[in-house]
Amino acid sequence: MSTSTVPAPSATARDRAQQRLAALATPPGALGRLGDLAVWLSATQDSVPPRALDNVRLVIFAGDHGVAQHGVSAFPPEITGAMVRTFLAGRAGVSALARTHGVHVRVLDLGCTDDFADLEPGARTDLQRHKVRQASAPIHLADALTDQEYAEAWRAGETVAREELGSGADLLISGDMGIGNTTPTAALVAAALGLPGSAVAGRGTGVDDTALAHKAALVDQALARLGDRAADPAEVLRVLGSADLVATTAFLVTTARAGVPALLDGLIGVACGLLADRIAPGAAAWFAAGHRSPEPGQSLALEALGLTPLLDLGMRLGEGSGAVAAVPLLHSAIALLRDVALLEDLG
Amino acid sequence: MSTSTVPAPSATARDRAQQRLAALATPPGALGRLGDLAVWLSATQDSVPPRALDNVRLVIFAGDHGVAQHGVSAFPPEITGAMVRTFLAGRAGVSALARTHGVHVRVLDLGCTDDFADLEPGARTDLQRHKVRQASAPIHLADALTDQEYAEAWRAGETVAREELGSGADLLISGDMGIGNTTPTAALVAAALGLPGSAVAGRGTGVDDTALAHKAALVDQALARLGDRAADPAEVLRVLGSADLVATTAFLVTTARAGVPALLDGLIGVACGLLADRIAPGAAAWFAAGHRSPEPGQSLALEALGLTPLLDLGMRLGEGSGAVAAVPLLHSAIALLRDVALLEDLG
Repeated sequence: MSTSTVPAPSATARDRAQQRLAALATPPGALGRLGDLAVWLSATQDSVPPRALDNVRLVIFAGDHGVAQHGVSAFPPEITGAMVRTFLAGRAGVSALARTHGVHVRVLDLGCTDDFADLEPGARTDLQRHKVRQASAPIHLADALTDQEYAEAWRAGETVAREELGSGADLLISGDMGIGNTTPTAALVAAALGLPGSAVAGRGTGVDDTALAHKAALVDQALARLGDRAADPAEVLRVLGSADLVATTAFLVTTARAGVPALLDGLIGVACGLLADRIAPGAAAWFAAGHRSPEPGQSLALEALGLTPLLDLGMRLGEGSGAVAAVPLLHSAIALLRDVALLEDLG
Repeated sequence: MSTSTVPAPSATARDRAQQRLAALATPPGALGRLGDLAVWLSATQDSVPPRALDNVRLVIFAGDHGVAQHGVSAFPPEITGAMVRTFLAGRAGVSALARTHGVHVRVLDLGCTDDFADLEPGARTDLQRHKVRQASAPIHLADALTDQEYAEAWRAGETVAREELGSGADLLISGDMGIGNTTPTAALVAAALGLPGSAVAGRGTGVDDTALAHKAALVDQALARLGDRAADPAEVLRVLGSADLVATTAFLVTTARAGVPALLDGLIGVACGLLADRIAPGAAAWFAAGHRSPEPGQSLALEALGLTPLLDLGMRLGEGSGAVAAVPLLHSAIALLRDVALLEDLG
């Protein structure tokens, strides 16, 4: 794993895109954030106007979390496997959104407890090709992953990103599935920003006040276990994360290094984006934020990354759904900078 | 013009849609406002799940405003005609967005100063079929329209809505073009809500502080001229509006009466939506709000209507552009309520 700085998107293209935006036959600033988005896409593509995004690909990283056995979720861990089957059947929330907006979906089992023995062998092999282990360790009691598991999960994320890029992806999105996933993710944000559990813990799929307080306390216990290792973002990810979270972070770093933009989803996407930028400084310049989640950890991580999400609709489904719902806004931004008349053409 | 109450969307369908939403294999509330939007669409269509929207139609009502000669806009009135030509050429901002999202666009000259004598005769006839007059009177000095002009503009809006509905529209959007249009529209909001010019005046296409203060004063002068007539919403519209604003309001009332949903755009769409609901109580139940504009009058009118916009991207282009940019969220909402597995189906 490389920790060198990620080259920035094209400053020349960004400047030319700004000039084109200012030259459009629209009042200055009238396109609002769609104008900014078009400029960012131009910079990531080194192309003014930006090219259409016609190969947007989502990878859902699935895995279970030891903490889910410790009263931090409104749902039992068995739901993780059930939802993976729902993705495979194309019947989940993100499946519906992805079909509507032409986004390709792939789901991978990085650390599910379920062994998916009932699946057709080919589908099962594809799903488990990058499986690291069954459920990460409960982070308040033990390190989530061993060094070897961390390395495996990181390589998985790199490999998957390269495969998606090799398929011609012009925008990548990561999604996550795993009951309990907001607890380790909140812990990652807390460790990265030096905050206590109470600042980052949210209700996830809908826990009550008691479970919320318990979740915050569990995060604090995990942070105490982490101790001085908080200074090393890779160690933070290994100790507090999970196979799916490590793979997601590697996926985002690899995407940024390849010079391809990524659209971050909710808490998990943005937290992994923050870790990606800590491990590979400059990666965040390749990220935009799809939506604001009600999880407080997501807003904190967004602020640290300097990102403002495109949508704010109170969605908290996970799966990459908020980012997929925001994809049409990228198409809007591109069309505006590409197709609107220039003032000089109106004569 | 009828002022009777507009029948509400189907309460039965709304309840059934709520039940279906609660029965989806997603955590309660996880779809956020997309879930609410799907329920509203179900109610407007009397169909659970809602049908796909495959005939979304935008009508841009264009007209000039006498106030534009009185220092309230950053642009000269001649731009109105230039922009109408840009719509006809498919080169405006909303043209680019509408093409991207499959929205049909029609532009009509209700009150432009420009006579469009250079246009090909067929195109000119289509554009001016519903023309009421050239530029409304400056509202701080005179009533915007005569009674007869008001009646003509109202009939135009009704006729155009019926034509669009006759073409099979399953969602209608109104857009507006006219240099100076935020001044009469701010005055409409002020009169409807009993507020002074300073509360509703915004920067429109980008006026400076001096012009902003002048705009607020001009609105106050218009409100003083209006006087007691503020009690009658149709009079408010005739005295403070313009041919394009009257037609837009009639278009929205007619859409609601036909039981078809409308997606409101920025200040102009929402202000006309507010007047529509005053003239035809209950009309607002057929409206959703596409985006939040930076104009203070829009936020005030949204609040009065009880609507929260889907997008908040700082757009202030007009033309219906914010609503068109929000159309994919309606497709998302429909797909979610229609395609996501029910919990009972997962076994």
